[in-house]
Amino acid sequence: MAPRKGNLMSVRTDVKVVDATIRDGGLCNNFEFTDEFVTELYKANIKSGVDYMEFGYRASKKMFDPKKFGKWKFCDEADIRSIVGDNVSDMKIAVMADVGRCDFKEDFIPKSESVIDLVRVACYIHQIPAAVEMVEHFHRLGYETSCNIMAASQANSDQIEAALEMLGQSSVDVIYLVDSYGSFYPENAGTLAKKYLEYGEKYGKAIGFHAHNNQNLAFANTIETMSYGVSYLDATASAMGRGAGNCAMELLLGFLKNPKYNLFPLLSFIENYMLPLKASGVVWGYDIQYMLTGQLNRHPKEAMAFTADKRSDYSEFYTSLLENF
Amino acid sequence: MAPRKGNLMSVRTDVKVVDATIRDGGLCNNFEFTDEFVTELYKANIKSGVDYMEFGYRASKKMFDPKKFGKWKFCDEADIRSIVGDNVSDMKIAVMADVGRCDFKEDFIPKSESVIDLVRVACYIHQIPAAVEMVEHFHRLGYETSCNIMAASQANSDQIEAALEMLGQSSVDVIYLVDSYGSFYPENAGTLAKKYLEYGEKYGKAIGFHAHNNQNLAFANTIETMSYGVSYLDATASAMGRGAGNCAMELLLGFLKNPKYNLFPLLSFIENYMLPLKASGVVWGYDIQYMLTGQLNRHPKEAMAFTADKRSDYSEFYTSLLENF
Repeated sequence: MAPRKGNLMSVRTDVKVVDATIRDGGLCNNFEFTDEFVTELYKANIKSGVDYMEFGYRASKKMFDPKKFGKWKFCDEADIRSIVGDNVSDMKIAVMADVGRCDFKEDFIPKSESVIDLVRVACYIHQIPAAVEMVEHFHRLGYETSCNIMAASQANSDQIEAALEMLGQSSVDVIYLVDSYGSFYPENAGTLAKKYLEYGEKYGKAIGFHAHNNQNLAFANTIETMSYGVSYLDATASAMGRGAGNCAMELLLGFLKNPKYNLFPLLSFIENYMLPLKASGVVWGYDIQYMLTGQLNRHPKEAMAFTADKRSDYSEFYTSLLENF
Repeated sequence: MAPRKGNLMSVRTDVKVVDATIRDGGLCNNFEFTDEFVTELYKANIKSGVDYMEFGYRASKKMFDPKKFGKWKFCDEADIRSIVGDNVSDMKIAVMADVGRCDFKEDFIPKSESVIDLVRVACYIHQIPAAVEMVEHFHRLGYETSCNIMAASQANSDQIEAALEMLGQSSVDVIYLVDSYGSFYPENAGTLAKKYLEYGEKYGKAIGFHAHNNQNLAFANTIETMSYGVSYLDATASAMGRGAGNCAMELLLGFLKNPKYNLFPLLSFIENYMLPLKASGVVWGYDIQYMLTGQLNRHPKEAMAFTADKRSDYSEFYTSLLENF
């Protein structure tokens, strides 16, 4: 077994905490956050020592009607600047671009003119060639890049090795292991992370992990993969994110030993902004319907529909999942 | 590092699932469950393949006024029998007896006359001699016994080794590692479990684990300790238990590969009994105040008071915890 990197008492200076609240949380409220919310989160993240803040997607306005979504689905340069100005802080700014859902050749200006630091390219395993094309484009524009391979729990080992080899040979800076369905246990998340780290070490790439909390394991899986050397760690305030949500930033910052991280500003943000958001009716977080799709290693879409319908007949839902396996 | 026992695909026939819903959950509602609730839980547990069901405490009626608590704080033989009859099932019945809070010499009849199978002796690390006295008494009466050493996260290594040596030489059948404050991470829960297992193997004792969910790690810690050989696993329906609650039975049964375990009856019980119980105002489960006491490795009593007062000023609460360290 690969050795752990550091221990429960040590500081891991290679760790980068990435706040994905607006991006993954935006999937819960159609990206309709107020400017005050985003501004206060930005300020709280800076005070808490967060390393990157992801503002949302840069989705194609040809494919998605801007009138039907909040602005953080598109992350116009001007909209980000209206929050961060020139971002005179140590925290970096990220956006996500999905393979097949963005106009990457038209919609990104050179890094030298942009306040964005990192472009995260999200793809499924069969889209790696398209992801590499995007990575190279963003790299040429001067951005840091990551490739976030989603739904890794449904990819087979050969596919993953081939993808890691292709990304290893690309210009990408960070390769992400993404547990889209929240179906990993710490033991298999750790095993897979070690595989990613093997390629990361070979090719000089950092490895990241993005969790979902379907089985209440988002935080556990995050710190397990971290213990072997994963260094880019996604988290969100109050674990806000699609379906069962993500790794809670408050759990992660409370765990990390680096004194640069500070829980207090985040707690203030949560009580002043996350609690009212939840009280307003935006729904996310661990519940049994998400546990079931996680246990069965499948997309949470049926659980999301169950939630939207305010159902609680878990046993009937379980039967329906087993009937449609 | 000690090898894992089995893997994520294998059946661990040594595992015993222990339902502690009435006992630990009773701490949330003063043990005031209806007979219908307890009966239906008993039936659901049997159908779900649960190995032991803990009915509550057998507390001293001299120290605690029976008028002020539900009957499951005392677990009279007649009350258990009113639910289970002669317990014509494969599931065994457990009760808990706290060191210093029960009249063990007077209140237990011989096993041959009792429907109870297992008496779980709960103690703090400095009470091990008293616990051993109780264990030997119950063993002579014919019961299976466990010793549940609470608050292990606050005991030092020397104390733990001494306790394990004393229990190893006793008649106890099962030694429990108990994370009373929910402050363990999987990595240190695993390390400590390996220590317990070392003594367990030397003296022929099984090892158990009882989790609390302060840091959303109850399930993760349970399966991590299990992976090294811990075999008695406590869980509760909907994770009901004091403060942040315990390991959710539904997560555990969904994880275990032994086909004897069946999630469906438990899901029916949850929708029909746990959801109404929660809707009636009984409060338990992960929340930030419990996360904070877990991170600080201390008793959740301040977090319980914060919850009872329906407060949500997390940052102020955090400050108060740091001031009273």
